[in-house]
Amino acid sequence: MRFSKLVNKTLKETPKDAEVISHQLMTRAGMIRKVGSGIYVYMPLGQRVLKKIQTIVCEELDLAGAQELLMPVLQPVSLWHESGRYEKTGKELMTMTDRHNNEFILGPTHEEVITDIIKNTISSYKELPLNVYQIQTKFRDEVRPRFGLMRGREFLMKDGYSFHLNHDSLEAEYENMHQAYNRIFERLGLKFRAVEADSGNIGGSKTHEIHVLASSGEDEILYCNHCDYAANIEKAVAHMAIENESGELKASETVETPNRESIEDVANFLDITAANCAKAVACKTEKGFVLVLLRGDYEVNEIKLKNLLDVIDLEWASEEEMKSLGMEKGYIGPIGIHQDVKIILDTTLESAKNYVVGANVANAHIINVNHGRDFTPHLVADIHSAKVGDGCTRCLGGTLESARGIEVGQIFQLGTKYSESMNLTVIGEDGKPTKLTMGCYGIGVSRTMAAVIEQNNDDFGIVWPMAIAPFEVNIMAANPKDEEQVKMAESLYTQFRNIGVDTIIDDRNERIGFKLKDSDLIGIPVKIIVGKSLAEGSVEVKLRKGGDMLLAVGEVVATVKKMVDESK
Amino acid sequence: MRFSKLVNKTLKETPKDAEVISHQLMTRAGMIRKVGSGIYVYMPLGQRVLKKIQTIVCEELDLAGAQELLMPVLQPVSLWHESGRYEKTGKELMTMTDRHNNEFILGPTHEEVITDIIKNTISSYKELPLNVYQIQTKFRDEVRPRFGLMRGREFLMKDGYSFHLNHDSLEAEYENMHQAYNRIFERLGLKFRAVEADSGNIGGSKTHEIHVLASSGEDEILYCNHCDYAANIEKAVAHMAIENESGELKASETVETPNRESIEDVANFLDITAANCAKAVACKTEKGFVLVLLRGDYEVNEIKLKNLLDVIDLEWASEEEMKSLGMEKGYIGPIGIHQDVKIILDTTLESAKNYVVGANVANAHIINVNHGRDFTPHLVADIHSAKVGDGCTRCLGGTLESARGIEVGQIFQLGTKYSESMNLTVIGEDGKPTKLTMGCYGIGVSRTMAAVIEQNNDDFGIVWPMAIAPFEVNIMAANPKDEEQVKMAESLYTQFRNIGVDTIIDDRNERIGFKLKDSDLIGIPVKIIVGKSLAEGSVEVKLRKGGDMLLAVGEVVATVKKMVDESK
Repeated sequence: MRFSKLVNKTLKETPKDAEVISHQLMTRAGMIRKVGSGIYVYMPLGQRVLKKIQTIVCEELDLAGAQELLMPVLQPVSLWHESGRYEKTGKELMTMTDRHNNEFILGPTHEEVITDIIKNTISSYKELPLNVYQIQTKFRDEVRPRFGLMRGREFLMKDGYSFHLNHDSLEAEYENMHQAYNRIFERLGLKFRAVEADSGNIGGSKTHEIHVLASSGEDEILYCNHCDYAANIEKAVAHMAIENESGELKASETVETPNRESIEDVANFLDITAANCAKAVACKTEKGFVLVLLRGDYEVNEIKLKNLLDVIDLEWASEEEMKSLGMEKGYIGPIGIHQDVKIILDTTLESAKNYVVGANVANAHIINVNHGRDFTPHLVADIHSAKVGDGCTRCLGGTLESARGIEVGQIFQLGTKYSESMNLTVIGEDGKPTKLTMGCYGIGVSRTMAAVIEQNNDDFGIVWPMAIAPFEVNIMAANPKDEEQVKMAESLYTQFRNIGVDTIIDDRNERIGFKLKDSDLIGIPVKIIVGKSLAEGSVEVKLRKGGDMLLAVGEVVATVKKMVDESK
Repeated sequence: MRFSKLVNKTLKETPKDAEVISHQLMTRAGMIRKVGSGIYVYMPLGQRVLKKIQTIVCEELDLAGAQELLMPVLQPVSLWHESGRYEKTGKELMTMTDRHNNEFILGPTHEEVITDIIKNTISSYKELPLNVYQIQTKFRDEVRPRFGLMRGREFLMKDGYSFHLNHDSLEAEYENMHQAYNRIFERLGLKFRAVEADSGNIGGSKTHEIHVLASSGEDEILYCNHCDYAANIEKAVAHMAIENESGELKASETVETPNRESIEDVANFLDITAANCAKAVACKTEKGFVLVLLRGDYEVNEIKLKNLLDVIDLEWASEEEMKSLGMEKGYIGPIGIHQDVKIILDTTLESAKNYVVGANVANAHIINVNHGRDFTPHLVADIHSAKVGDGCTRCLGGTLESARGIEVGQIFQLGTKYSESMNLTVIGEDGKPTKLTMGCYGIGVSRTMAAVIEQNNDDFGIVWPMAIAPFEVNIMAANPKDEEQVKMAESLYTQFRNIGVDTIIDDRNERIGFKLKDSDLIGIPVKIIVGKSLAEGSVEVKLRKGGDMLLAVGEVVATVKKMVDESK
């Protein structure tokens, strides 16, 4: 490729709406252009990277025994009714209606379609296990698309599905995919970590997310400083430091707490710790109202709460709603409220005694409250978010620390969720119909491109790993008016291309400083500058990751080729 | 790949809804599975072919200097308002509305998006010409999806766009793309022909369609038996044999034609030829009613008529509508009708005299009618379909013959249609804003897969050209219980894979006849059977296109490898 022909435009200014570095650099380097909120064009430079990522993904999955296919974007809504997922998915689902008034879903994932297809393709246990995948454009109507390719509404995803006769076979393939994912993300040059996670709308039991560790990550990960436990905060469980577990039950008493609405204010005012207070949160769901009580120094984990209640919509109750249910904003408590409100006691309070709750009248709290005696929770469950400093439940020795992560992949053990609702069986070895067990495996292909940049950049731009750089080598004459330099640059360009090095020649009539800046912004790993040293028979080689050298004209091709191959 | 692991199911029965051979064979071979009307899954075997086609398309386009990018499926409707195409496109356009009530188009083509992107990417004449393309899933809400991948609602397409400072540059790139298309379709092993065509909804002036010649083709192509003129019937022009052009104007006269409504009946009854009658067709459009008059032995060409009138909707007027406008069904004519009906005289009648028209009363026609004297047409234009036997307008010597074609590609000279409506300019060499000129270039990737089968099949199944066969070689032991045979088959499988031949081994515990049938249905070019002749140190090689040979075990790998390479 010749730079003068490349359809591209680099920008000096950081685009206003780009909050994270990958979005900024991809836009500045000309790799992507925005078409609408969360919708992008991959320009030629971006498409080159995207294709290289796809090739690596396909190579490793094929090696691992998965087979590529291609499912449609448009999915008949009937399949989603069959699985029961249509009703459970909120407004993120994009749909369209055809000229005959049939509704279709613009696929966010393809569990239903693949289950239906496999049902019509295999019939015997002999054909199992099997694993198929696709790389395809997916759709999700995010409330707030942001961070460029990190949270778009149209994105490229690899989704794979495996089918098994039994759980052992699923476990083996889950591990096989986990290993394949490790190889993929290693080849992409990423620092990543598999963490336990919530299975969300997809369903199933065991699931891991693959997170690229980066300060801009949207997810918080808690990990043990002692063992290998790591989990998304939405899922993480922990031992908290227990307080108040012993002692006699004291008589409860209503006390005045004028204008003390927050846990902090109440604790200060009463000269106790937040851990002695019960935080009360009133929520509204499609199944009714709930009051959640948890220890004052913890936060409600909405995902755990949603899973517990099996609800789709969860929001804080309004002041009016609270009032109508006998609750007073700022002074909420479990005592004396309407009986339709379901009280959920978090495990952080399970063994607590003599804590403080709101009195449900303004400017008052009740001290020395005890569940069982003063009120009866409907449920006791873990619905709080674990936090830094909590104890690890796996090793019981370590404590949890926190990191930010970008989720680039997820593997699920779906179990029989889809095969049951959609009735997928084969004839088993015993001649009887056997319900299949499924796994599913995703990689956010376009998001991975962004994640690589989040981990590989500096003040000058992107620092692509060799394996997915848009070009491996960029050749330029220091002085485009020097015929000898230009001739040598062109000769090297031809030589590199002939031996399969992905090379661009910057043949633009621009100053060398301008060209080097563009090259570093775009992130090309190797720059070769044919300059004054040509008189002594050598050219300059500059590595994007750092390192300059002078190489003899007769050696540069072989040496750089070796360097390129070794770093892939 | 091992056949025992391949996620596939071949079928003996031809699926009921499959009308054409490609649909039948792709379904029977397990290459595609239907998900909904006009919506398919490409199963692993189909996906392998699809990817090979895509690779060839990309290689040739890259070589021709085009650059790949990837645009989104979702296109903001505002861009289509800007170009003015939203209003001009009918119900084929699929749209969706997001959670914020913004409307998006599911892209059928991408002229608007690319024009907008290029507007924001280049600014100077120095950056031109340029040519970009993508391979992407496209959407079109066909009234009647049919013929499998030939006319689907979701399909894979390559669409490319070029931008130029002037028409000469566009002409040169148009020719460059034409040549690239020739190379692509040659590599795909197709017999094809470029024909003149209508530019349809895309717009622009000059356009050619690339047609694969096949009896199942949806399009009729007229071509000259003397020169290289060839055109889609929707566009074809011709000289017709002229009748009635001399002679005096006779006095017109109303005659009774009881129950003679068709041209044929009227001509027989009056003992004249159809060419002496004027066929009158009343149409309704969004701009009002028109009456088309053409020679009785020709048919109205709806596309020519729509283009002439610049309308989107065109349908025959109903009996009631005709009545209200002074026309009588079966006896329609141009005389005495409501003045709001626009009369269009086709060129077939331009020099005609003394012809017969309906009298606009039941059971009567008027003979010896002459335009200019008895009625005045609003327009005279070519709105008939040329037909076999008409004279060629290019060479004036030959006559037109007919063939069926499958349109697999189309190249357009768009001119300034989009750059004008969307205001795409660059600074020209003279320092002033210059409006750009565009070309656009499409290939129906998934349709091409079907077209290849339409041309390459026999009673046993598909006969893939080597370049895009799902596998190049299929190896099997004649007797899967014979250890020596199995060992040699496995050894050959490894040897072939090691030298990069795309090989499958049929390791299923099935009879050899069954395996050979599957192989031929799927269309694998080379079968290698390790059978009894192994005792004499040879194996059997059977070519799908015909030809059997015994090859020594020590030679078979090199010989077949050479055969494979030479036929790609």
